[in-house]
Amino acid sequence: MMTIAIKVQYDGSRYQGFQRQIKGATIQGELERAIFELTGVHSAVTGSGRTDAGVHAIGQVISFKSQSSIPADRWALAMNTKLPQDIKAISSCFVDDKFNARFDAISKTYRYLILPSSSSNPLMGNYAWVIEDNLDIDAMGEAAGEFTGKHDFSAFRSAGSADCDPVRTISRFSLEEGFIEHLGERTIIATVSADGFLYKMVRNMAGALMEVGLGRVPKQGYIDGLLKGKDRKLAPPPAPGSGLYLMKVEYARKLFER
Amino acid sequence: MMTIAIKVQYDGSRYQGFQRQIKGATIQGELERAIFELTGVHSAVTGSGRTDAGVHAIGQVISFKSQSSIPADRWALAMNTKLPQDIKAISSCFVDDKFNARFDAISKTYRYLILPSSSSNPLMGNYAWVIEDNLDIDAMGEAAGEFTGKHDFSAFRSAGSADCDPVRTISRFSLEEGFIEHLGERTIIATVSADGFLYKMVRNMAGALMEVGLGRVPKQGYIDGLLKGKDRKLAPPPAPGSGLYLMKVEYARKLFER
Repeated sequence: MMTIAIKVQYDGSRYQGFQRQIKGATIQGELERAIFELTGVHSAVTGSGRTDAGVHAIGQVISFKSQSSIPADRWALAMNTKLPQDIKAISSCFVDDKFNARFDAISKTYRYLILPSSSSNPLMGNYAWVIEDNLDIDAMGEAAGEFTGKHDFSAFRSAGSADCDPVRTISRFSLEEGFIEHLGERTIIATVSADGFLYKMVRNMAGALMEVGLGRVPKQGYIDGLLKGKDRKLAPPPAPGSGLYLMKVEYARKLFER
Repeated sequence: MMTIAIKVQYDGSRYQGFQRQIKGATIQGELERAIFELTGVHSAVTGSGRTDAGVHAIGQVISFKSQSSIPADRWALAMNTKLPQDIKAISSCFVDDKFNARFDAISKTYRYLILPSSSSNPLMGNYAWVIEDNLDIDAMGEAAGEFTGKHDFSAFRSAGSADCDPVRTISRFSLEEGFIEHLGERTIIATVSADGFLYKMVRNMAGALMEVGLGRVPKQGYIDGLLKGKDRKLAPPPAPGSGLYLMKVEYARKLFER
């Protein structure tokens, strides 16, 4: 019995989310189906995190056990012969028997994409939060800084969180202006790294930054106040799942070359 | 009875193409349904061109007649209340009774997007031609230059073309490197403007340029040779529809502010 880790990318647009459901297509369901078709045996897949409906991944990591004789580096290629076009295995390797993609993750990086477009480009509706308004990007960047460090994130944790401890440490929260050249569209890219995230935490943080960007709340101290208040009811609703990308998951040891 | 022109954008991923079909969702079908829901009367919609299945539009122009009292500049807003998320009306205006979005177009600009990615990003499968190979972009750019000017494009016209005359004039065919910042993906953007295009002409030209980029044919004179040969059978197959974007349609008079 080997334990296999695979780095996967997916377009979450047409999925109910990562976690297997009784009804509807899920990322976990597609991955487990692919493994079953390859090996004839059901393997339970663990993801580093359970991305929600519509959320995308550039660097999700999954782990599972199998008795198959498929070599470590062939697993990704083999999976791609069975996966739909919008889910792709990038790299694969064998890992320690005790490895668990979820519990062994020491850091995760998410991106949140905002498209401040007057034409609200219908090509980006599933891939960004399209906002037909001018945003104060500098104010958003400064407010994002208030998230960095070790905090109690109770105000940014949605109901349904499996974790008891609401304390997380954000090592980086940056805002950059981006560009999608072929569409001629400017974007705002929020990138946030932490030792872990509570349920809908990135989307809740993006929702709060949007209030700053729209000038509805003070530029300074608003995020700080929400953190200190620890009350989810005082914070704005989460940003839509369409803008969220799981970019990278890190473990104590580097697993993949690419 | 007024004649209305509307600039529309759409994500062609889930459509059978522009033209109404007996079965399956089409852009024309959705537009005509929206007009019917607004006015209670069926209006036949004419598009500047009939984009194929999977082809996208940033600046498609449609025209139709209606007796509705909706003011010129409110048509776009009204349409958006009835259209699905992946089709959007951008601007609207009243035009001359004789205006026809197809026959009055004097110039069109298309973009063809190539993603030369080792990870063949599953997020871009519907929006580009994903190529897991190194491409000689300089050679492609030079070869593209051989398309410019007035030529008989018989070698680049697929069966099913409605036009008799195979002669078109390409005023611009440029290749640029682009970037999708939030995905960290480099792109190749081909932009081509002409007085008109034959059936699948842009995709057939992109397919030929790919042969040059992959080094399968001589860098110089290959496109020239195909043009002079006027034989579709000697040219490579069309590039996939997913990479094609109708960017702009121009008329003798500028119709829209944006």
